[in-house]
This record gives sequence, C-alpha cells and structure tokens, in this order.
Amino acid sequence: MTTTDETQATRPAGRPRSARAEKAIIDATLDLISESSGLGELSIEAIAARAGVGKTTIYRRWSNKEDLLVDALAALKAPLPTLAGRSLREDLVACAEVFLRETRNARSRCVMNIAMNEAERHPRLVQRIHQATIAPRRAVLTALLERGVATGELRADLNVPIALASLIGTMVWYVRGFEPGHEDLPEGAAEQVVDHLLVGLVPR
Amino acid sequence: MTTTDETQATRPAGRPRSARAEKAIIDATLDLISESSGLGELSIEAIAARAGVGKTTIYRRWSNKEDLLVDALAALKAPLPTLAGRSLREDLVACAEVFLRETRNARSRCVMNIAMNEAERHPRLVQRIHQATIAPRRAVLTALLERGVATGELRADLNVPIALASLIGTMVWYVRGFEPGHEDLPEGAAEQVVDHLLVGLVPR
Repeated sequence: MTTTDETQATRPAGRPRSARAEKAIIDATLDLISESSGLGELSIEAIAARAGVGKTTIYRRWSNKEDLLVDALAALKAPLPTLAGRSLREDLVACAEVFLRETRNARSRCVMNIAMNEAERHPRLVQRIHQATIAPRRAVLTALLERGVATGELRADLNVPIALASLIGTMVWYVRGFEPGHEDLPEGAAEQVVDHLLVGLVPR
Repeated sequence: MTTTDETQATRPAGRPRSARAEKAIIDATLDLISESSGLGELSIEAIAARAGVGKTTIYRRWSNKEDLLVDALAALKAPLPTLAGRSLREDLVACAEVFLRETRNARSRCVMNIAMNEAERHPRLVQRIHQATIAPRRAVLTALLERGVATGELRADLNVPIALASLIGTMVWYVRGFEPGHEDLPEGAAEQVVDHLLVGLVPR
C-alpha cells in the first residue's frame, strides 16, 4: 500500500484511491486487533504503519480511535440479504446462511470475541460496537420472529428472546463444533439448523 | 492469606491449610486471567503474590504454569448434577440449570472467553483446557441426546451435533441477552429454554 497523505490533491476524480486507503486502514485495524489481546493497546500509529498510510489519512476519515474501531468491527458484518418475505422458513434460512458463513471466518470470530470481552474495561466503546454490529442483526431477526407469530407460522405463545437466542446461539455453537482447519460445513447446514429449531427435537 | 512455604512441617493433621492455599492459588489465577487479556502474560510470580503464597507452594502442587491454568479453568465448571434418568426433559432441565447459572457468572464467562480466544497463540494449552472443561460437558449431553433417540423421546432422525449446539448455544445466547447488572434470569428459564427446543418454534 503506497497511498500517502500527499496524494489527495493530485488523485484523479472519483474515490478509488481513498476507498483503497480506507479498506487498508480497516484491514490493518482488524489484523492488529486479532493479533492483540485487547482494544486498549491499539494505537493510530500502529494502524497507520500496518496500513501503509500516514496518520493524517486516518484522521481525515475518523476523528478518533474509537470511531475507527467501531467502523472496523462493523465492516465484519455483511449486510443481511433482502428477505423475500414469502415464508418465514425461507427468510430464516437466508439469514442463517449469512451467519454461518461469517462465523466460519476465524478472524471475524476472534476479533468480535476480543472486542466483546472488553465490556468491563471499555463499556462505552463496547456498547457502540454492539450497536453497530450486533443490535441491527437482532432487530432484523426479532422482527422476523414477530412476523412469524403474527402470520401463524410460529407458535402464538413463542418466547421471542428464547427463539432469537436459539437461532443465533445454535449457529455459533454448531460452527464451533467443527475442528479448526476443517473448512467445510455440511451441505445444507443452514436449512438443517433452521428446521431443527422450527420443528423441535421431539417427534411430531 | 498468610500461608507460607515454611508452615508445612508444623501444620496440624489433615489438609485444611493446603486446601486453603490451593483455593487461594486457583482464585488468584482466575482473577489475574480476568484482568489480563491473555494467558501468555501470566507469571507464577504474579499468581503467588496475588494468592499470598510462596512460589514453592505453587510448584509443590503444579509442576508448571500450564498445569495450573488447566486446573484453574476446570475449577470454573461445577460437576453436572447426577441425572435422574427418568425422562430426557427432566435431565436436560437439570443440566440447563447448571449451564445457566455458570453462564451468569461474569468472571467465569470472561475467563473462558480469554482462554478460548488463545487457540491460535497457544493451541496445545487451549486444547488441554478444552479437554478439561468443555469436552466432558459435551460428552454428557451427547450421551443424553443419544439416549433420547434410543428411547423414542427424541426424533429418530435427530442430528445430534445440531441438537447439542442448540442446547448449549441457546443457553449462552439467552443469558447474554440480559443486560449486565440485571442479575436475575426469569423464573423457570431452564425449563422454558429446554421446552422451546424440544417442541420447536412452529405450532403443533
């Protein structure tokens, strides 16, 4: 990465160079978090050095380290797919596919673990990260579950917080059950997880 | 804690003093992990100082730091209750109560997260911790689920790894959904979680 702070004036129209710099900065931040043991020890200097940019390039985009950390962690989360809205099962499977893919990404999992583990040391920062990464996902899934109750696709007496926990928790734990290095989840894993939760474990 | 290395010869019969020292050493180790950001930075010196014992007291019981870390993390896990074996639901609820109680313990959760997050840096140590803490639990629950399939209490086509993930993952995520400081899970949480998983989310 050779972008420097001095190139802004001469760069061509459009934002390819600044977009590249931004990506390099985000990547450097995530790499450094995954190699570190906490958010506190990261410095803008180290991030700039890793990204191959000047500190000014970072401060042009983010006014402080907290803002950069929040954006970097948010970048780990792909947007959820547009939900077709035809059936609850179909929409849950579409979400599950995104979750399973992300959870398979070891760096993503490691970085989120490190961040969430800092709740006691950096409560305000972790709260912001939660708002930028986890809360939007929970909101989409909660709305989906409430829609399912309204349409009768889900039980009328559904406990939505437990159902939400079962969706996210099962996916995360299922992925963890696979040994590191074994990169492929079974074919159809998203459908299987969703169906196990929908129909339950006891015979019908 | 005033136990010193010199008191062994004069202590009365029985092991109250060494049991107290052992507990102090385990507690000091867990405290230091929870305050740290990784397992690598812990030293026997720091543990001895925090526990108020001499290094010799530690080395009399553990031949190296890894052994002490494995025992300290294993001490976080209460033995699972004796399972009555009358019904799958009853036994699952008994396990769920232990899991939910442990997961509510912030230090326990934090320490386990820090340890598991070290898998890349200290693979052999994390593997030993996994064997001492997580593997026995997984084995008990797996046997329970397999028994349920055999008795017909669970579906004949049950995917046991998904069912196992749903039990553990749902409990962990359900507990996380409660704000820190809100110490009480709803009455009957263990039964509710188990029943949601057993009967499923769709109407019967």
